[in-house]
Amino acid sequence: MFDQTRVPQPTLVAKSVLLEGDVVRILDRRVFPFEKTWVVCRNVEDVAKAIEDMVTQSSGPWFAAAGGMALAAQAADREGTSVDARRAAIHRYGDRLKATRKTNNHIREVVTELLAIADSALDRGEDLTPAVTDGAKAAARRYDERSERLGRHAAPLVPDGATILTHCWAESYLTQTVAAVLESGKQIQAICTETRPYLQGARLVAESLAEMGVPTRLITDGMPAHLMSRGDIDIFITAADRVTMDGHVVNKVGTLQIALAAHALGVPYLALVHAPDIHAATIDDVEMEDRNGDEVLFTLGHRTASTRVTGIYPAFDATPPQYVSAIATDRGRFSPRDLASYHSKEDE
Amino acid sequence: MFDQTRVPQPTLVAKSVLLEGDVVRILDRRVFPFEKTWVVCRNVEDVAKAIEDMVTQSSGPWFAAAGGMALAAQAADREGTSVDARRAAIHRYGDRLKATRKTNNHIREVVTELLAIADSALDRGEDLTPAVTDGAKAAARRYDERSERLGRHAAPLVPDGATILTHCWAESYLTQTVAAVLESGKQIQAICTETRPYLQGARLVAESLAEMGVPTRLITDGMPAHLMSRGDIDIFITAADRVTMDGHVVNKVGTLQIALAAHALGVPYLALVHAPDIHAATIDDVEMEDRNGDEVLFTLGHRTASTRVTGIYPAFDATPPQYVSAIATDRGRFSPRDLASYHSKEDE
Repeated sequence: MFDQTRVPQPTLVAKSVLLEGDVVRILDRRVFPFEKTWVVCRNVEDVAKAIEDMVTQSSGPWFAAAGGMALAAQAADREGTSVDARRAAIHRYGDRLKATRKTNNHIREVVTELLAIADSALDRGEDLTPAVTDGAKAAARRYDERSERLGRHAAPLVPDGATILTHCWAESYLTQTVAAVLESGKQIQAICTETRPYLQGARLVAESLAEMGVPTRLITDGMPAHLMSRGDIDIFITAADRVTMDGHVVNKVGTLQIALAAHALGVPYLALVHAPDIHAATIDDVEMEDRNGDEVLFTLGHRTASTRVTGIYPAFDATPPQYVSAIATDRGRFSPRDLASYHSKEDE
Repeated sequence: MFDQTRVPQPTLVAKSVLLEGDVVRILDRRVFPFEKTWVVCRNVEDVAKAIEDMVTQSSGPWFAAAGGMALAAQAADREGTSVDARRAAIHRYGDRLKATRKTNNHIREVVTELLAIADSALDRGEDLTPAVTDGAKAAARRYDERSERLGRHAAPLVPDGATILTHCWAESYLTQTVAAVLESGKQIQAICTETRPYLQGARLVAESLAEMGVPTRLITDGMPAHLMSRGDIDIFITAADRVTMDGHVVNKVGTLQIALAAHALGVPYLALVHAPDIHAATIDDVEMEDRNGDEVLFTLGHRTASTRVTGIYPAFDATPPQYVSAIATDRGRFSPRDLASYHSKEDE
């Protein structure tokens, strides 16, 4: 993602955040694939709003935040007359981006990394723009490479002939896993939940897996257990927005329910994440985002609920380790009870 | 339902099938509450199509089939020159209605009952119309009375102050349970799943419970487990389209998944049905309806899925007895392991 990287990116939504000079262009996933429109962000506030308003999701906010930091560097260089003023400015922009969405730690990680690069540039008396822009591009390249490694580690757990069930849109975690599975010569099919209220499954997963040539069928969010009970699912795979060191998988709401069903019905559950979060020892260290309940009253802009009811929208849930079969990362596969091993291991 | 019965019917959708002379009028639940339009059925084929096309659901098809039999009697009287011809005609119409939807046995039961009444009338040399019409009205009254008794038996399992979670639309089973709970002076709240693809929860449950004065909130079909995991749900209640004698609860797809989560997370699951089906010894005796998969690609008429994907729509699932806490019927509450007791018991 971002622009040309050395890692093959098979699908359109995987190239959905572009840093082009002084703008960040973000594919509007709220209407994709029915419309292929882009939101043009000319400053950090535009980027932050786009993240908050769900123009992009999954790994999209990570790339948007990285691009946003490049715009922040340009603005700080433009506005700041002194080193101190520029330092204050870019940290203020970074804080704005970090405040957008709380549950996934990736936004904070990339912003923190780019703020460190910014500080070093200022310490050396340099302009922020070249250093932060190069840093953002390097981070994006590294992100894609990590996903590629993750996919290679995940693929051996997918049997030949398997039907994969997936929930929400796991983006490059999923596409790289599928790419590695296909490269190894295995045949697979996919079933995706539609993932209300935003229908990421019905739109992004369905479109992207079809683009990769994987026969893909769609179900509602209530059907996974029934399909498992009649033997239609071989493995359940999702991304994780966060994995705590004690093995809880935080992901799109709905994941817990499917994982519980998978456990009861004998289907393995594989979670995908670059790395468990060393800063989250337990699930209590994760701030779970509650979004505006009105979002469940609508479907792609149409009111679909009675006007006499209010909505509830907890965006994420947490699946405890006893319901997780394995976690595939950029450094290999781990038991959810053995995540300390990740941080004592090298990339491979 | 049907017309005026002695049992109070609190909500609009509960009076949604009307037998008026030579037409059956059916509230179109596909668009309710956004539009309050009625489908007018002038003959048996109209009624059968309305049932197949989901103009009505839950107990609606039962009432529609009963009304359809009244139209069948009129048509047979009109067409038939001999007793044999009229007998053949009404049985042909009855078969058409029985063939509409297979999983719920109620349509077959009421049609079978009214065919027996028709046969008796013919044996006595009478016209079919008065006998079958009176029979249909009596059956409808009895249906409502059974729901009222069911509600009284279910209510003691709902604690004061409880938040009830419900899935799909349990119609008079639910409204009579809620009415009995409220009459006993208990305060309750409700949370309903939207129940894709038809959104019965977002539309019918939400509207009807609000009409009864119960504070009601809406969630997507993926959220029940998460709400249970944070302690927000006290009891999960659904109707059953069929309960087998070995304690399997057949209901709207999605029920199994929530029941599995309820079991794992310590929430009781109460299923509501007039009676377990003495003709279904085990789950293998139930024909599970698979509907057209295209229905999951749309939401209230709008395409909401990628055009590159196909849909799957199993309409029902089966929850095994180990995940069912109790079954409330018109003759009391039963363990799912003790359903033979129902048929050795009197109404009470």
